[in-house]
Amino acid sequence: MDLKLQTKYMKQAFNLAIKGEGFVNPNPLVGAVIIKDGKVIGKGYHKAFGQVHAEVDAINHATEDVAGATMFVTLEPCSHHGKQPPCAFKLIEKGIKEVYIANLDPNPLVYKQGVKVLEDAGIKVHYGILDDLGLKVNDIFFHYITTKRPFVAMKYAMTLDGKLATKDFDSKWITNKKSRKYVHDLRNKYSAILVGVNTIIKDDAKLDVRRSKKSKNPVRIILDPKLQTPKSTYVVKTAKTQPTWIVSETYDQSYVDLGVKIIQMPTIDLDKLMTILGEAKIDSIFIEGGAYTHASFLEANLVNKVYAFIAPKIIGGKNALTPIGGEGVSLMKDAHVLKDVTYTQFDEDILIEGYFK
Amino acid sequence: MDLKLQTKYMKQAFNLAIKGEGFVNPNPLVGAVIIKDGKVIGKGYHKAFGQVHAEVDAINHATEDVAGATMFVTLEPCSHHGKQPPCAFKLIEKGIKEVYIANLDPNPLVYKQGVKVLEDAGIKVHYGILDDLGLKVNDIFFHYITTKRPFVAMKYAMTLDGKLATKDFDSKWITNKKSRKYVHDLRNKYSAILVGVNTIIKDDAKLDVRRSKKSKNPVRIILDPKLQTPKSTYVVKTAKTQPTWIVSETYDQSYVDLGVKIIQMPTIDLDKLMTILGEAKIDSIFIEGGAYTHASFLEANLVNKVYAFIAPKIIGGKNALTPIGGEGVSLMKDAHVLKDVTYTQFDEDILIEGYFK
Repeated sequence: MDLKLQTKYMKQAFNLAIKGEGFVNPNPLVGAVIIKDGKVIGKGYHKAFGQVHAEVDAINHATEDVAGATMFVTLEPCSHHGKQPPCAFKLIEKGIKEVYIANLDPNPLVYKQGVKVLEDAGIKVHYGILDDLGLKVNDIFFHYITTKRPFVAMKYAMTLDGKLATKDFDSKWITNKKSRKYVHDLRNKYSAILVGVNTIIKDDAKLDVRRSKKSKNPVRIILDPKLQTPKSTYVVKTAKTQPTWIVSETYDQSYVDLGVKIIQMPTIDLDKLMTILGEAKIDSIFIEGGAYTHASFLEANLVNKVYAFIAPKIIGGKNALTPIGGEGVSLMKDAHVLKDVTYTQFDEDILIEGYFK
Repeated sequence: MDLKLQTKYMKQAFNLAIKGEGFVNPNPLVGAVIIKDGKVIGKGYHKAFGQVHAEVDAINHATEDVAGATMFVTLEPCSHHGKQPPCAFKLIEKGIKEVYIANLDPNPLVYKQGVKVLEDAGIKVHYGILDDLGLKVNDIFFHYITTKRPFVAMKYAMTLDGKLATKDFDSKWITNKKSRKYVHDLRNKYSAILVGVNTIIKDDAKLDVRRSKKSKNPVRIILDPKLQTPKSTYVVKTAKTQPTWIVSETYDQSYVDLGVKIIQMPTIDLDKLMTILGEAKIDSIFIEGGAYTHASFLEANLVNKVYAFIAPKIIGGKNALTPIGGEGVSLMKDAHVLKDVTYTQFDEDILIEGYFK
């Protein structure tokens, strides 16, 4: 098939895939389209963890018989029994004759197994179409499946002169409504939101998802070594409806009685915490401050991605807080440099995104 | 003429105009193209202060007789005798029959006078074509001609976490080569570069223009209340070849003997300084730090434009310098908000530009 058409159909498949954001974790986002006689006859995506896979969803929604058709799917069809029967066999059974895949399965145990099953059945298979896009769309999944630890993103909103708030801690609002709305889409995408206890004390942050679209609330994780989170805060009061986990060096049953889960560590060790959270099926963490928490994760080399929102406003103040506190590096050559940087405008605000390593 | 064609020719005229950047101050940047029988037969621009105006330059370079032709010119042709004879009469004399103008002359004494002279001679005149672009291209001129004080731009380069340098003052380099190269284009465009004395003491900044294109060096202005600029610095040692003006509360003849000009003020008053510099024909100032100097100009409401270069690097450090120091505002509602914001990528770096008011 013509390369332009391949790109077009695979993009359609990715656009379907991302509809599952927030609901499939720790599964990957997967989309599929089925083409027959030059037109799309089926579309599908993985809608939520435990539900049918994208390939089967597309077949189920096909407007005509898929025998002899071509499928575009963003991730290698599975060939092993998990929560769902293996998709590769379904494709064979239904008579799909050609398959275009973006990314191969990153799990070394099943890598290329799906391709093999399909090819053994005489299906023509192509892979690597828009696989770079796939690595971004499924950045969380690829990280989690290979490391068993959460993908960590750090988010902040700052003024054009690099401040998180005024000298008197006013930060309402730095960015515009559109930017703030997008933050709720991001929160929805991640399994957990993490903040330092001071953010809870100062802002009584809700850390929930408020948007018109169907949403799921992430787990709230608070780094609170001395267990100082006030019981009057929103996160504690709503702990029974939206999970609130406090990572602390001490333990207090009264928090647990209120629905809070306490992850106790002798001393807070972020690296170990990542392993614990990975085991708890937290595939992704969205860190929303403050400056000290950001610095701690950065210094521990645990940050995979940065979302920096910048508003074209200047507030000044030599004592105002900047997004990353801590000690900081001494020399520019030791700076943490972001890769694959992208820029997105939200009216006059700009979002700069990038990856570490 | 068709609007698309009008836009096309006026853009050509603006592209010619900006070739004069750095050389015409305090005159405006002006470009002109002459169209006859649907093709460009002449192009010109104002090349340097005191030299022929764009309209005459275009006529002089015309490849055929301009009688009956149409001229596109970015600024209203002058009708008064200055360093050059009035252009409007030249257009009449040469038989130009139609004129498209971007901006009218902002000088109230001559506003629309050129248009009147042309129309009285039977020439068809249109104005306001791409005048918004003209206001940006000639931001310096429009400000200076109406206020008699310099247009003030503030420039800084910061990391994605809002820092001018590491905690140990290392700033080499935050931005990439392309960004730093563009700074030299900007320096060339402004009549003066201004810094606080600490920038000279810490960096021994050269504050000159280094680039392959034909350039002119701006006047260097140093805010140095106690006259602490070391005589061993580059700015003092080269004061005889590139003007170095020190604004100080004291006076020392030995600096003057080295070629430095001292602007003495009982106490440094930035507002008064702007008037003094305006009288000295400084139409524009490019402020390059540091954080305290930026804050002083901002607090005095003297900044017209901001150039913020941002590199996708994170260095951390709660004590690292941010671009704007000083006291800062207390509430977000009092933030200085930029208008007409534009974003330009220099590979992975981004330049955010905007205007105040």
